[in-house]
Amino acid sequence: MKVVVIGIGLIGGSFAKDIKKLYSEASIWGMDKNDSHLDEAINLGIVDQKADNESLTNADIVIVSIPVDVLVQELPNILDKVGDETVVIDAGSTKRLICQAVANHPKRRNFLACHPIAGTEFSGPSAAINRLYEGKTNIICEVEETAFKLQEKALELFQKMGMRIRYMKPDAHDKHIAYVSHLSHISSFMLGKTVIEKEKNERDIFDMAGSGFESTVRLAKSSPDMWTPIFEQNRENVVETLQEYIQNLESFKKMIEANDFEGIYNEMNNTNKIKQILNGIPLTKN
Amino acid sequence: MKVVVIGIGLIGGSFAKDIKKLYSEASIWGMDKNDSHLDEAINLGIVDQKADNESLTNADIVIVSIPVDVLVQELPNILDKVGDETVVIDAGSTKRLICQAVANHPKRRNFLACHPIAGTEFSGPSAAINRLYEGKTNIICEVEETAFKLQEKALELFQKMGMRIRYMKPDAHDKHIAYVSHLSHISSFMLGKTVIEKEKNERDIFDMAGSGFESTVRLAKSSPDMWTPIFEQNRENVVETLQEYIQNLESFKKMIEANDFEGIYNEMNNTNKIKQILNGIPLTKN
Repeated sequence: MKVVVIGIGLIGGSFAKDIKKLYSEASIWGMDKNDSHLDEAINLGIVDQKADNESLTNADIVIVSIPVDVLVQELPNILDKVGDETVVIDAGSTKRLICQAVANHPKRRNFLACHPIAGTEFSGPSAAINRLYEGKTNIICEVEETAFKLQEKALELFQKMGMRIRYMKPDAHDKHIAYVSHLSHISSFMLGKTVIEKEKNERDIFDMAGSGFESTVRLAKSSPDMWTPIFEQNRENVVETLQEYIQNLESFKKMIEANDFEGIYNEMNNTNKIKQILNGIPLTKN
Repeated sequence: MKVVVIGIGLIGGSFAKDIKKLYSEASIWGMDKNDSHLDEAINLGIVDQKADNESLTNADIVIVSIPVDVLVQELPNILDKVGDETVVIDAGSTKRLICQAVANHPKRRNFLACHPIAGTEFSGPSAAINRLYEGKTNIICEVEETAFKLQEKALELFQKMGMRIRYMKPDAHDKHIAYVSHLSHISSFMLGKTVIEKEKNERDIFDMAGSGFESTVRLAKSSPDMWTPIFEQNRENVVETLQEYIQNLESFKKMIEANDFEGIYNEMNNTNKIKQILNGIPLTKN
């Protein structure tokens, strides 16, 4: 099995690692606009050799794990070059514009639109880890647009990797993911910003920070190269979630100002049911 | 050594566990307004026996780990009952009102105002864990108001438990802790609320949540009984931090609306330095 991974970072690299374990005969070909990343991936044994455009023609699987703005731009060119038996899988955190970019492409049936919901706040080939995707949800969009045999090939891989599959429309994906992923990242970045701004004047502040702060601010370590185009592509949904979040914070603040601590208690008590909800979420240990 | 722990939950229970390990001859006496908690703590072996008011007279150390509103109310009564050699240590997340409540107490010198910055989102005796405090910061306020010999006794315990000590004034403590702890909790509670409100209509949403969401929303599992009085006692500082946080979120939203994605990139890039800052924070593993 010949697998080409375009974009050898945390996501693509972790795919490569799992594939090498699961398919002993697989050869992994890597492509990255950053040469040093590609060399690093080869040194780390994540990738067997460098791929060029011709490698795409006879690849069984192509995994495209690059920032979503580049994805929208490059996906049609990648599809141009693949063979009839190649399935191209993306891992973009948005789905509407990506599906739209190839909607009328003559090789649309070679593409399977995916969003494996897994990751850490780290990036680059050295961040790739084994079994990142085990037990995680993989959202597949417009499955009916992909050739049946190629769906099957991809699903076999996902199943071996231990992913849970959910099928959604691109619009619904982008709307929901804004709540459970994009908003978390913004709340974390802005929390980090608020505290850093304070720290300019108050040097001791971080000595007082505990694991609670560390946990809420973890996502503020994430890569701006990856996240800027996500927010851009999902602009309207992100603005809507932010609006609701700000409104909730405003009303919490007003309750404190009005000394309505019974209201404050109830707000927190009602939100405690997140415990039960979170029990269903598989955690990344690292 | 006779130790009385008033309030046998996560905080008091974890103190008790460490003390039993570090001082083989120590006997732990427990007091809790919740009888079933006290029985549970005895069954779990965290506490040796139930304490009554008379137990306070000849205690070496009294640890008071109860919600901060009850603390302000009960601390003078506790001090009334302790002996000359007893050091009373609190673990409240606010310090100004607590120090004020005993400022003119005839036994003020028996009290050491502390805030060990450690915890998890769980509560009750079963949440108590070994070495919760190892490597964590313990803020001590108004140390000069405590009798020298009693300071020494408490510091020996903290040192054995592996805590890092920082000395601060109560006002400075309350101001800074609003940023690195209280704000994190509110941002997390409101994130949980925003997503739960959405989920009423969209049942699938939580299937899409990954470890990023889990991490930012973890603190929304925290106890409203503990946190309501903290926000009440630290009302002004909390409102100020919330104001700044909301302002930062508003300006991020406006940048997205204005398609200023260079600005968005810079915001995230500048906040990435939280990585270096967080490297100094000891983590709770559990």
